[in-house]
Amino acid sequence: MRTVLILGAYGFIGTNLMKYIDKEGLDYKAITFDRFENHPMGHSFRCVDASYAGDFSDESVMEVIFSKHKIDIVVHCISTTIPTGGQNARYDIESNLLPTVKMLDVMEKYHCQKIVFISSGGAVYGDGKELHSEQDAVYPKSSYGVVKVAIEKFLFQYASTAGLQPLVLRLSNPFGKYHCSMKQGIVNVALSKARQKEPFVVYGDGSATKDYIFVEDFCRGLFDLMGKNVWSEVINFGSGYLYSVNEILAEIKKLYPGFVWEYKPENKNDVSYLALDLTKLHQYLDYTPKRLEEVIAAL
Amino acid sequence: MRTVLILGAYGFIGTNLMKYIDKEGLDYKAITFDRFENHPMGHSFRCVDASYAGDFSDESVMEVIFSKHKIDIVVHCISTTIPTGGQNARYDIESNLLPTVKMLDVMEKYHCQKIVFISSGGAVYGDGKELHSEQDAVYPKSSYGVVKVAIEKFLFQYASTAGLQPLVLRLSNPFGKYHCSMKQGIVNVALSKARQKEPFVVYGDGSATKDYIFVEDFCRGLFDLMGKNVWSEVINFGSGYLYSVNEILAEIKKLYPGFVWEYKPENKNDVSYLALDLTKLHQYLDYTPKRLEEVIAAL
Repeated sequence: MRTVLILGAYGFIGTNLMKYIDKEGLDYKAITFDRFENHPMGHSFRCVDASYAGDFSDESVMEVIFSKHKIDIVVHCISTTIPTGGQNARYDIESNLLPTVKMLDVMEKYHCQKIVFISSGGAVYGDGKELHSEQDAVYPKSSYGVVKVAIEKFLFQYASTAGLQPLVLRLSNPFGKYHCSMKQGIVNVALSKARQKEPFVVYGDGSATKDYIFVEDFCRGLFDLMGKNVWSEVINFGSGYLYSVNEILAEIKKLYPGFVWEYKPENKNDVSYLALDLTKLHQYLDYTPKRLEEVIAAL
Repeated sequence: MRTVLILGAYGFIGTNLMKYIDKEGLDYKAITFDRFENHPMGHSFRCVDASYAGDFSDESVMEVIFSKHKIDIVVHCISTTIPTGGQNARYDIESNLLPTVKMLDVMEKYHCQKIVFISSGGAVYGDGKELHSEQDAVYPKSSYGVVKVAIEKFLFQYASTAGLQPLVLRLSNPFGKYHCSMKQGIVNVALSKARQKEPFVVYGDGSATKDYIFVEDFCRGLFDLMGKNVWSEVINFGSGYLYSVNEILAEIKKLYPGFVWEYKPENKNDVSYLALDLTKLHQYLDYTPKRLEEVIAAL
């Protein structure tokens, strides 16, 4: 039985991770940390041993958690900002980078060495039509992406000086159940709009083409990697299936024929193409992800 | 006549930049910013139009400077930490990264787009015996290096969203006149120790081999690049001459035969080899730097 501290536990990925532990009966006990006291969608989880709420910037909460619990692995899913959220470099540093570094200091104090960091395949590499590999230089276009890069670099800097064992997963665009943001996650946001019979807004002409991954496939992969003790690695995590925005919207329209959308000028922080080289992921995982068309009706 | 704001004006590089303007009679007017009210070594400079002192973290000083002066170019030489200064990620973020980003916001407000950032050839690339090129992935080993990378990435992120035109110079190890730190700059520190008839401490066995550059060569190159309007670039800036620590110490011993040194365990934040690919620099500059042996007696 491993104890995993899930940071951002009530967000989209955190919620899915805990649902996955429960559903599969995995040998993990979860300690949760979130800004909310209770799950915003009212979910509860059998795997949870203790829950903490607070501001990630307030390191005293981390001190309490690590002093009370023997944490084997931290899974860091917190982000206070989104890639297309505009320019907020200062807030990004203050609310994401600094708290993460403070937490690494607490981890070191309590001899916790393993951390999974959910980085962004879409935000770190920048533009380019090629397949992005983990060893490529990175050219983030958003402050969100710069801070993801800075956190990655600090994780490996603490690896060399403090023995930290990070697993950085550069995730593509996840979609799936337990999603509630109306600001990011185009598949889920468009589905919500379709159900609410409201028009969806596309930024750009809808030709932007990216890798999309079913969040449950990501959860399975994450636990498989932890189970195989894959640490001190940066791994691209996508499905390998690319969809344009227009293809996604057309797929949703099959389910909701009244669904409509409108086009607005594109966001200049965003990239228009994302394909990840998944060679390393496939070296570790025997992995056939689901396609969007297979699961979208059940979301 | 261009007005240049020199951040960290009374430090080693800032001082040399202003001495170079004065000596060569360059068409630059300097506005200085430093934490000190007066130059710690008592130097004065003809090129200086106005001087400001303050804490770089206090953005109100930047607001005052940019509101009072039409700044054409910012030359950012501030670093509150050093590569071998140990683990101080939080302080590095708070005192270097955050103030830089706040200043970029002030620059944007006052429509100042050109900034030269003194990055570190030695701290960003990480270990490796190969020649490091600007487009290589970076693997900083110190929090100093991670923050240099983060600042670089923010500069280019502001370039894409706010029209900033950064010139990032990944400087190797400068030595020369007007140096007063006893913490970094091995050539100058060892020279001081030799003159003071004190033993010098070598961290490691002295075999660490790196690129060293005469600071006046760097100043000339920097002004040449600005004169040619080279912006939106990352450029390695070294001499191409590699020296081991032991070779440097032997060179100093020729001048000061009583000079002695002792070896202590190496610093794990430091790299043991640094060679920079200078192809890009040489594309822009016709540049034959001086060798250490040529200038060391005059320092």
